[in-house]
Amino acid sequence: MVDSLEQRKKQAVVLVSGGMDSCVTAAVAAQEYEMAFLHVSYGQKTQVREREAFNAIADYYHVTRRLAADIDYLRQIGGSSLTNDSIPVAESGLGDEDSIPTSYVPFRNTHLLSIAVSWAEVIGASKIFIGAVEEDSSGYPDCRKEYYQAFNRLAEAGTKPETHISVVTPLIDLRKSEIVLKGVELGAPLYLTWSCYKNSDRACGVCDSCILRLKGFREAGVEDPAEYV
Amino acid sequence: MVDSLEQRKKQAVVLVSGGMDSCVTAAVAAQEYEMAFLHVSYGQKTQVREREAFNAIADYYHVTRRLAADIDYLRQIGGSSLTNDSIPVAESGLGDEDSIPTSYVPFRNTHLLSIAVSWAEVIGASKIFIGAVEEDSSGYPDCRKEYYQAFNRLAEAGTKPETHISVVTPLIDLRKSEIVLKGVELGAPLYLTWSCYKNSDRACGVCDSCILRLKGFREAGVEDPAEYV
Repeated sequence: MVDSLEQRKKQAVVLVSGGMDSCVTAAVAAQEYEMAFLHVSYGQKTQVREREAFNAIADYYHVTRRLAADIDYLRQIGGSSLTNDSIPVAESGLGDEDSIPTSYVPFRNTHLLSIAVSWAEVIGASKIFIGAVEEDSSGYPDCRKEYYQAFNRLAEAGTKPETHISVVTPLIDLRKSEIVLKGVELGAPLYLTWSCYKNSDRACGVCDSCILRLKGFREAGVEDPAEYV
Repeated sequence: MVDSLEQRKKQAVVLVSGGMDSCVTAAVAAQEYEMAFLHVSYGQKTQVREREAFNAIADYYHVTRRLAADIDYLRQIGGSSLTNDSIPVAESGLGDEDSIPTSYVPFRNTHLLSIAVSWAEVIGASKIFIGAVEEDSSGYPDCRKEYYQAFNRLAEAGTKPETHISVVTPLIDLRKSEIVLKGVELGAPLYLTWSCYKNSDRACGVCDSCILRLKGFREAGVEDPAEYV
């Protein structure tokens, strides 16, 4: 009986970058869905290390359905410190609340979600999980709730009439410290994640992503398992 | 004076597949905008021939800013006769008005438009031209006006606050025959275009795309410059 119940589990595509937020998002999705893991590289400097983390998290959750897509045309387009070597990765980009940080990749999440929708439509998944965080985030326009509402209307309009796919953002209202605590609560393998935008061996501790992560662990009163330079 | 007026021309990204509709769309955009041409391959069977047509049309309009992007992950995803060799390209897919043809590539236009938005934001273009056709089309969900309205809301929500990019669909209400006539009127180089989904030397004349094209030329009373088998 348990087996047949398991087989009827609904499918969800989970966008897993390899960072902490996507790892905790997977832990949330795992409670209700059979997961298919999607990883997207876009020419970012740490992409090999991120894909390693992706595969490690997929192994942890016994996810066999994996898709690793490469959208390196974002590197041709440039415009971000994450994909353009001539723009340095900021060490204090989070200081100015009103500006978009240099690590902003123009319209990036739409690329990731579009791949997820195409894949979900083909494999018959009805949900797409993404670890976007609005509060306490870097101010990226495509991490706000309004953006996801607009995307869900687009997914409804742009797929077959019988297809109903929507994006779920379980972390969107959480602070980084709450994400750490949720991860601990759900047994997410945070020790397998990679967050640094700059290095691939030991985390730099000074890029936007490291700063947010360190602050999150500190405020949660949890020790960060990552190694820093 | 003419030169400085020219320099102030606004920029537009034009999606050019190499087919007739995109060629006529470029002819429309050329009237008002300095054009940047975007071509996207997605593992479709005729992609080399289509890129040739793209470059020929770009040469014709003296477009120097070109981006050729490859999203071959759509081939990994499959689900369409255009990208999956095990699904035959239909020869009569247009017969059933209520069904989505096998050539439907799930959510495809969102991938193309997302690349266009990212590029437009980086180069400072405010418009994206795409030759989508709702009437007389193949019934793809992402060729309807409703879809483009939803996409424009997403582009507004997902880019920087100071960025305002919108998609323009000058052909959306036209029939194929009207597109042919508009192309002739604007001097669009229709002889450089490639429409066939199946062949790359002489057009097959029997796939969805050939059938629509032939019908359009016939109804317009214009001779199709393409060679057929």
